[in-house]
Amino acid sequence: MSDPLIIALDGMGGDGAPDIVVRGAAIARERLPQARFLLFGKSELLEPLVAKEEILKDCLEIRHTDQVVTGDDKPSYALRYLKESSMRKAIDAVHDKEAHCCVSAGNTGALMALAMFGLRTLPGVSRPAICSFFPTRKGETCMLDLGANVECGADNLVQFAVMGEVFARTVMGIAKPTVGLLNIGTEDLKGRDEIRLAAAMLRQSALPINFAGFVEGDGITAGVVDVVVTDGFTGNVALKTAEGMSRLISGFLREAFQSSLPAKIGYLFARRAVAKLRYRVDPRRYNGAVLLGLNGIAVKSHGGTDDIGFANAISVAADMYLQGFIEKMKVDFETLAGEGTAVDASATTGVAS
Amino acid sequence: MSDPLIIALDGMGGDGAPDIVVRGAAIARERLPQARFLLFGKSELLEPLVAKEEILKDCLEIRHTDQVVTGDDKPSYALRYLKESSMRKAIDAVHDKEAHCCVSAGNTGALMALAMFGLRTLPGVSRPAICSFFPTRKGETCMLDLGANVECGADNLVQFAVMGEVFARTVMGIAKPTVGLLNIGTEDLKGRDEIRLAAAMLRQSALPINFAGFVEGDGITAGVVDVVVTDGFTGNVALKTAEGMSRLISGFLREAFQSSLPAKIGYLFARRAVAKLRYRVDPRRYNGAVLLGLNGIAVKSHGGTDDIGFANAISVAADMYLQGFIEKMKVDFETLAGEGTAVDASATTGVAS
Repeated sequence: MSDPLIIALDGMGGDGAPDIVVRGAAIARERLPQARFLLFGKSELLEPLVAKEEILKDCLEIRHTDQVVTGDDKPSYALRYLKESSMRKAIDAVHDKEAHCCVSAGNTGALMALAMFGLRTLPGVSRPAICSFFPTRKGETCMLDLGANVECGADNLVQFAVMGEVFARTVMGIAKPTVGLLNIGTEDLKGRDEIRLAAAMLRQSALPINFAGFVEGDGITAGVVDVVVTDGFTGNVALKTAEGMSRLISGFLREAFQSSLPAKIGYLFARRAVAKLRYRVDPRRYNGAVLLGLNGIAVKSHGGTDDIGFANAISVAADMYLQGFIEKMKVDFETLAGEGTAVDASATTGVAS
Repeated sequence: MSDPLIIALDGMGGDGAPDIVVRGAAIARERLPQARFLLFGKSELLEPLVAKEEILKDCLEIRHTDQVVTGDDKPSYALRYLKESSMRKAIDAVHDKEAHCCVSAGNTGALMALAMFGLRTLPGVSRPAICSFFPTRKGETCMLDLGANVECGADNLVQFAVMGEVFARTVMGIAKPTVGLLNIGTEDLKGRDEIRLAAAMLRQSALPINFAGFVEGDGITAGVVDVVVTDGFTGNVALKTAEGMSRLISGFLREAFQSSLPAKIGYLFARRAVAKLRYRVDPRRYNGAVLLGLNGIAVKSHGGTDDIGFANAISVAADMYLQGFIEKMKVDFETLAGEGTAVDASATTGVAS
């Protein structure tokens, strides 16, 4: 608890900002006594909120910014015209080594663009990816890419596998994470060319990756591997389909408990158990999509999250810093670069549109 | 109830065959008094099972076959060497106009290959697609392709939209079904090239399709459209991810109700309501993946289904025949062909691997 941990926060990003950002920081501070915050945004809005949180009194500094990246701003627009925005300033703080990591619940596309521009990718990484958690029977699994890259070649998938493996080792605390490629069958001949090629590359690689082959859609929540690798299009569809299914069943459950008098009585008895169930699939627990592959730590909180979800996103960012995520990534990508041509030669085999 | 309805059944396909096939036929017959069955498979196994079902006594004919398509058989192997299999014979019965439709719970890839070879595609259809149901807040939605085509161009997606629209009109009884393209955002600029091109083609088409634009993954179970169109890779991942999520939550719910004495008491009161919830998301209700685009009706039941699920798959096949699905498809594909070059020119714009 000795070394300071400095976290830059985009005070204006997300549907519930700035309230959820400030309250989220207060909750995170309880878990991380060494944390200090740089909070970027409109000081006239932030000051009264911060004043209400006793715990933040000596560990939070407000940095005033006028500009805000809205949900509708195109990434290119944010990059060119919103250089004084709270989102950009939070990223710059990481780049300038004022902060160890940053968190924003704002516009994903803009955050991705600003973070790529501001932090650059790590040596050897062609494209960063968005990574997040899924609940599983055994605990949780992480999946990437969830939407940063619409088209991915085999080389991208291999890089995602490396990034995801390091993430699972450092943030999820799994000593030897298993890694699988999302596919429509587990047999060697199934699926798209770039996926089969990526599998061959991962099997040949000297990297100490515990590659488990192909995983199907239902393998994600079954927890058959710790890291699920896919392209950003498929990953985004899978993530949102799973969220939609979860919401559908929650709605049906609510209706079921209100459908009759016995059901209502049953709910009174079972409500603690049901609350536990809700907790197990609570999207707030799985909040915090990480932009992996950057030369710096940037975490994206879900735009519609509340304070607890935002605090969880802060915890993810803090974990990545405290566990030395960036340094571990550098080591693995040096190994991958050492394998040279096998990986580079495949750079042209991706899907062409 | 006058005209006969003759259904060919693959007696040997699926994990629970032949039992679930025979019992499924009995259940289906209660719903469809005009149905008659041609049951293909090993007579020594089928006869004692059929003898147990009084209702099938005068409406089922066993046709002995020695060969069986197993779950491990490659489609090419089934096509070349299993010409005397129960699956092939059931399809041949449709081709030879002995039966109006056929149902199999066997190997999907083999069924697809045998059905394509045996029934051929309808004029104007480049590739058939697998279509099935999803539960939604409002009822149900259908989605295609669920795995027949790993790579799809814009022209394929447009054809799938037409097939799905006719399916929703005839089998789901929706007068003016809405159709959406699965994408990772609803804005015009989002997603892959072939999806944007397909959207432009559907907007320009003279077909009376109620095209609603792009749909995201969580839009499937929200029921924002009646028909969701996607390529077979994405569709298969989405389907299996949704199934996995549903299974995860069911498991958590079971554990929740056993987690304490109050929860157990609560379950006693709420069990009918919970049973209703289970019914609403019961995969058996959504059983029956249809091979759309063929010149004949072939329905694939889930391999792991039980008798109720198999009966539901029979109902889907019967509905398609009784509602004149094939004739309606022919009309729409003639219109599409009349639009000519707009569609044909795009045949080369698909994703190349």
